[in-house]
Amino acid sequence: MTTYTAPINDMMFLYEKLRNNKSYNELAKYKDITPDLVKDILEEAAKINQNLILPLAKAGDESPAVLENGVVRTPPGYKEAYKKYIEDGWTSLSCDTKYGGQGMPKTVSAFFDEMLSSASLSFKLYSELSIGAYNCINHHATEEVKNKYLPKMVEGKWSGTMCLTEPVCGTDLGLLKTKAVEQPDGSYKLTGQKIFITSGDHDLTENIIHLVIARSSDSPSGTKGISLFLVPKYIVRDDGTVGPRNGISTGSIESKMGIKGSATCVLNFDDAVGYMIGPKNKGLNSMFTMMNLERIVVGIQGLGISETAYQNSLIYSKERKQGKSNKNHSSNGSADFIIEHADIRRSLLNMKSIIEGERALCFWLSQQTEVSLNHEDKDVKQEASDYVSLMTPVVKAFFTDMGSEITSDAMQIFGGYGYTKDQGIEQLYRDNRITPIYEGTNSVQAIDLVFRKLVNRNGDIIDKYIKMIKNDLDSTNDKIKPFVLKINLYLEKLESFSSWIKDKIQSSKDDANAACNDYLKVLGLIAVAYSWIKVLEVSFEDYDNNKIFYEDKIQTANFFFERVLPRIDSHCATGTSGSKYIMDFKFN
Amino acid sequence: MTTYTAPINDMMFLYEKLRNNKSYNELAKYKDITPDLVKDILEEAAKINQNLILPLAKAGDESPAVLENGVVRTPPGYKEAYKKYIEDGWTSLSCDTKYGGQGMPKTVSAFFDEMLSSASLSFKLYSELSIGAYNCINHHATEEVKNKYLPKMVEGKWSGTMCLTEPVCGTDLGLLKTKAVEQPDGSYKLTGQKIFITSGDHDLTENIIHLVIARSSDSPSGTKGISLFLVPKYIVRDDGTVGPRNGISTGSIESKMGIKGSATCVLNFDDAVGYMIGPKNKGLNSMFTMMNLERIVVGIQGLGISETAYQNSLIYSKERKQGKSNKNHSSNGSADFIIEHADIRRSLLNMKSIIEGERALCFWLSQQTEVSLNHEDKDVKQEASDYVSLMTPVVKAFFTDMGSEITSDAMQIFGGYGYTKDQGIEQLYRDNRITPIYEGTNSVQAIDLVFRKLVNRNGDIIDKYIKMIKNDLDSTNDKIKPFVLKINLYLEKLESFSSWIKDKIQSSKDDANAACNDYLKVLGLIAVAYSWIKVLEVSFEDYDNNKIFYEDKIQTANFFFERVLPRIDSHCATGTSGSKYIMDFKFN
Repeated sequence: MTTYTAPINDMMFLYEKLRNNKSYNELAKYKDITPDLVKDILEEAAKINQNLILPLAKAGDESPAVLENGVVRTPPGYKEAYKKYIEDGWTSLSCDTKYGGQGMPKTVSAFFDEMLSSASLSFKLYSELSIGAYNCINHHATEEVKNKYLPKMVEGKWSGTMCLTEPVCGTDLGLLKTKAVEQPDGSYKLTGQKIFITSGDHDLTENIIHLVIARSSDSPSGTKGISLFLVPKYIVRDDGTVGPRNGISTGSIESKMGIKGSATCVLNFDDAVGYMIGPKNKGLNSMFTMMNLERIVVGIQGLGISETAYQNSLIYSKERKQGKSNKNHSSNGSADFIIEHADIRRSLLNMKSIIEGERALCFWLSQQTEVSLNHEDKDVKQEASDYVSLMTPVVKAFFTDMGSEITSDAMQIFGGYGYTKDQGIEQLYRDNRITPIYEGTNSVQAIDLVFRKLVNRNGDIIDKYIKMIKNDLDSTNDKIKPFVLKINLYLEKLESFSSWIKDKIQSSKDDANAACNDYLKVLGLIAVAYSWIKVLEVSFEDYDNNKIFYEDKIQTANFFFERVLPRIDSHCATGTSGSKYIMDFKFN
Repeated sequence: MTTYTAPINDMMFLYEKLRNNKSYNELAKYKDITPDLVKDILEEAAKINQNLILPLAKAGDESPAVLENGVVRTPPGYKEAYKKYIEDGWTSLSCDTKYGGQGMPKTVSAFFDEMLSSASLSFKLYSELSIGAYNCINHHATEEVKNKYLPKMVEGKWSGTMCLTEPVCGTDLGLLKTKAVEQPDGSYKLTGQKIFITSGDHDLTENIIHLVIARSSDSPSGTKGISLFLVPKYIVRDDGTVGPRNGISTGSIESKMGIKGSATCVLNFDDAVGYMIGPKNKGLNSMFTMMNLERIVVGIQGLGISETAYQNSLIYSKERKQGKSNKNHSSNGSADFIIEHADIRRSLLNMKSIIEGERALCFWLSQQTEVSLNHEDKDVKQEASDYVSLMTPVVKAFFTDMGSEITSDAMQIFGGYGYTKDQGIEQLYRDNRITPIYEGTNSVQAIDLVFRKLVNRNGDIIDKYIKMIKNDLDSTNDKIKPFVLKINLYLEKLESFSSWIKDKIQSSKDDANAACNDYLKVLGLIAVAYSWIKVLEVSFEDYDNNKIFYEDKIQTANFFFERVLPRIDSHCATGTSGSKYIMDFKFN
């Protein structure tokens, strides 16, 4: 089984040293969330994740969620753990105090999301969509609906889902068939089938609040006829108590490669009572509130699983002896710990430099998300919102792709043992593998980035982002200068790739489309490198106060700039090679 | 379930058009193996793989091999299929006619190896090591031993294994503990434990011939005290009949992420009777005959699985409608087949261009292997042997890493369906994932390449290889010229990376070690690009005789040169960045 120790030091470093820095923007309302308070929270979070939730990962893999007589049963131990989890208030961490939440900033809840992903992604998913549904309802529903549903969801007694996908419509929601027929009382009756519904049914909560997109019977076809509905598993009475079963049944649950503890359901809606949320035919807009926040969390899942993979690889490298290192000149058969081998060290530093850079990026993005939702100044709010929308597909796709790379590299370090079930490494590899797929495949993220996020009605966002980085870089500091020179070199490449792609969006959409995956990776690498710059600024400035910690940061950053960032070279070369030969190809 | 159609056209193209070309070297004894004969063989091979063996992939994944009361039982259907498989003579394809083999060249048996890997890697493994053991015995054993064991192995009635790994010794065989004590009759008694033994026990054959490395009781420690022993599951009597059970028992079988149909055994040797093969204390040399050939076959496994992943992705892309392509201007909700999307096409061509390039490289390498084993001219033989030893780690590591990439990209094309068990795609991803690990992890391959294969007692092999390519490139042909210019550009990069690394092997082994993975990938990309050049030469020359086929080749090659080959840029940049900062890192 894997082990896991929450990286509280690194998290606290970010919280203490970065949240008030230049280019950061802590909201006034969070000024009194002191580092001491956050540290207390993270220490409690570490305890529950390390002790109670981590073992659920293996339990869920060995005894997956099952559908029995129409009822989904979660793996052994999930029920007891979930009870403790909500008793301790973890579902409510970032929720509004108005509904019983703890009102913590997203910087803190993102740390918690990471820990929970490190411990057990399957278990995490049972509460993750509840927060997504909470956000969606909180933004788009009436006060009446909020008061009726949110307190129980914040408390964790009820959970939530997102019901989008249907058999013929995944990426392309315009194709959806689920129908909603308006009733005399203003409610709707929904009929149709939804598939791939995470936590669509389970035995952890007394009710499940489904957020369902469907087409009202008098709405047009395509994406412009989609509305959003709240459809509870059990009808909620006016007094807030749980009433009779609604017309929703679980058709089957998926047999999957990983996250087996999570129930992925086919849900059949058969005249199920639902209530429209937000304006009619604008359901996708409302749903996107939920999806965008959710996409960032999926990126964090990739980060969390990567952390566990790294930690276990590091421990194994210090325990396993095999082969002689280059500095070992003994002539007998003695072997060195594999951490002495350059290639193993390279692989470990590759993981570490990506993980810590991602964590720093995620911290900034979480803060920007708060600003985008809650800042008083409209312009500041808008700018943050633009950056969040630019970075959402990047974080979703880049972090999860890196999760695939890191969990795979971890298997290599374990050798044959990594391929067997005993060590838990192969499970990390399988569990992570859903993250590049769900919430929109990484290709969809890349297309979204290129066609909708670079330039939009708010302006040339990518240009603003690059300028923001450039303005922030300080090349007068001799220690940071080598890093600044390097990122500047690659910023130039990003700039010319950006110009190229903006031009192609107008003149040859296929060229842009064929380049979008490469482009996303370039932007991801730059964003992580920029986050490292922010970490480096503090590391050099505060060096004498914590030499060991900061030296570790500086050397890890150095690795990132020497060995990870240059991936940009190839992505730029391939990305800008056009698409005519691709589009003309016959595929006989 | 996956589908599979053997790529006979592509294979026959290589066999017909390339085997007598410049830089190829068909042995005289194979001159009368006509294309017609080979085509007949491939068509029969396609039949058995497509119809009988392909369904075993899913069967083995759903009902893995099990150990019951000390006996390994293969998955349902394996026994019947294996019976037909040996009746049709497939084990004997490339074996010497002297022992009942069909004496086909390795070019043909490599095609068969690819097909079998495409159909079911788990099933393949039951006969694969038999061929490895056959080769080893054929090269190193006495006539008496050969006559006693080989005919039954060629026939497939007996199978073989390679027993190297022990709990504390995988990569580092010098640590092995299994002991062999000489008996008065010249035989040995072996005691020890071997792990990760593929097909270590099963119910398909009446005997299993284990090739075991062990330390004779009077041999020194380390790798210089290792000898090779033939240890049969059942003692073979002088008349060739199967006698009493030997002292070998199966301790357990591994529970693995993939290739679940294959039994991976812990074997306990307890005073098991064994016979020394080859000279005492030179066991590793003898075993390497087997391992090197086997490593190429593992590369072919990656190729074969990639082909199945590609074929299924292509079919799905032509069936699944989702989203509108850039040329679709309709305003209703209709969607296009996903093969109309540039990014999907890019992904498919990435697979195809790597697969077909690899197949061409493998064809050349198989032919060179034959030359290295059987050519009459000592110098020609040596040169081929040098190229084979240079390319063996490259093919093993590069093809299997590409297998990981291609099966992963295939999952992306299938979206959520790719992550479920129904489609069989996730199984390809899991099954392939062993190939970068076994027969020496890909890092071990990279270290082997850099420290033992570039320059050795036969000279500067990499220099010779680069010169051979350069001499062979024809830039006077206008059609090929753009490709030649591009490969020349990257050959220069390979040359300077090679000089750098040869220098570092002397001056800083850690620098070389930290660079070896990047170096292997650069050489792999060059080798595949060079193979594409050979394919292009024929494609342009013979164009009018088969326009559709050759146009497909030319465009696929074009993709490889535009979008795959430039990966070299990043590998060169990161690989040559040194290792001081890596070796000094503290890993607290």
